[in-house]
Amino acid sequence: MLLKSELKYIQSLFHKKGRDQEGLFIAEGPKIVTEFSADKTIRIRKIYALPSFLNKIKIAIDSTEVTEEELQKISQNKTPNEVLAVVEKIKWEENSKSKDSICITLDTIQDPGNLGTIIRLADWFGVKQIVCSLNCADVYNSKVVQSSMGSIARVQVEYLDLKTWFQENSESRIYGATLNGRDVTSMEKIKKGIIVIGNESKGISEELLPFINVQITILGKGKAESLNAGVATGIILSHLI
Amino acid sequence: MLLKSELKYIQSLFHKKGRDQEGLFIAEGPKIVTEFSADKTIRIRKIYALPSFLNKIKIAIDSTEVTEEELQKISQNKTPNEVLAVVEKIKWEENSKSKDSICITLDTIQDPGNLGTIIRLADWFGVKQIVCSLNCADVYNSKVVQSSMGSIARVQVEYLDLKTWFQENSESRIYGATLNGRDVTSMEKIKKGIIVIGNESKGISEELLPFINVQITILGKGKAESLNAGVATGIILSHLI
Repeated sequence: MLLKSELKYIQSLFHKKGRDQEGLFIAEGPKIVTEFSADKTIRIRKIYALPSFLNKIKIAIDSTEVTEEELQKISQNKTPNEVLAVVEKIKWEENSKSKDSICITLDTIQDPGNLGTIIRLADWFGVKQIVCSLNCADVYNSKVVQSSMGSIARVQVEYLDLKTWFQENSESRIYGATLNGRDVTSMEKIKKGIIVIGNESKGISEELLPFINVQITILGKGKAESLNAGVATGIILSHLI
Repeated sequence: MLLKSELKYIQSLFHKKGRDQEGLFIAEGPKIVTEFSADKTIRIRKIYALPSFLNKIKIAIDSTEVTEEELQKISQNKTPNEVLAVVEKIKWEENSKSKDSICITLDTIQDPGNLGTIIRLADWFGVKQIVCSLNCADVYNSKVVQSSMGSIARVQVEYLDLKTWFQENSESRIYGATLNGRDVTSMEKIKKGIIVIGNESKGISEELLPFINVQITILGKGKAESLNAGVATGIILSHLI
């Protein structure tokens, strides 16, 4: 049974403020919860699940059986999916950013689905670090967690002031997706450097453009105005890595 | 003012059955409605808009001024966006599929956001035709319309039985995204042929695999299990076109 105090506590994690205060976030659905439970870097604090989930899967974690109505109350999905886990934010070793590898940097990516897709893409292409501008979506937003499909456990996402970040990395080669750069299909593969993806409609912020050493463009033939940020990142990574 | 009968009529267009019966669909938001109103291939039947929209933009289309509360009732968005248009389904010339160009074929792409993204990508790369399996999302679903960002006016989407479609096109080269194919980055550009994208978790249906002449794979280095179908399509198109 779900206590009233638990209901309130979980609902407080719907918001960034609550997640930051408690150092916790929420993951929903059997796939991601099972994956997290098997991942040594992830600590699940508690599970709330339907009997169907608890009877099927054995997890040595503090669990509370809930009814469908109770799950509905603590879920952020229209149709809740069997189980919800309260998870500790991932603890990364500090200064893990290496100047000898590739780092994706996101400027004003505010759509949680896009951020999740990009984290999953980074994981797919073996990129271990993402730096986000301070106004990007929160990596622990439930939609990001869901669309990253567990990749948030393998890709370190940090929030920094990008101007300072670029100033501190002036010796790194900084690549940026713009509308007037080199054709991405003509680029050679790279092993290190920073790849900057800007906001879908506004592009990379004006004040950051002077830091870009190599502008890259995905050439189009048709009339579509833009590509979504997740797709653009995928195309660029597939050509550069 | 919105009549009760209009409310019911618009709500009937939320569902595929209603859209098919009436030959109409809904587009929401000032960007897409303005774009559609300027497009000669698109016929808007009627507009329902807040005064803010009607005062700003002059469109020679039958319009009804509505309040925010009324717009909320006919909108499928949580936060309605100024204007909603009832639009006639696009009439394409039949048999416009050319064997001398590229056709994207989608097998069981059921997520409307993914379908919309792929339509936008097709438009970006100059692909004019998409064939969908009968169980794909409906192109006139409001989420598809929204995420395709107006590209549905430029890319013809048809629904066919894929087995029959491949049998009728046995002389075309059929490329398919699978897990064990040729590295997409090593492929040469193509000018014609069929590119098949399968379902994100299940891949291309077993019964369709024998029709694939060239299997293509996006190689990953990390641990992510899969890429989303929109991103995979973007990467493949950027290497092949």
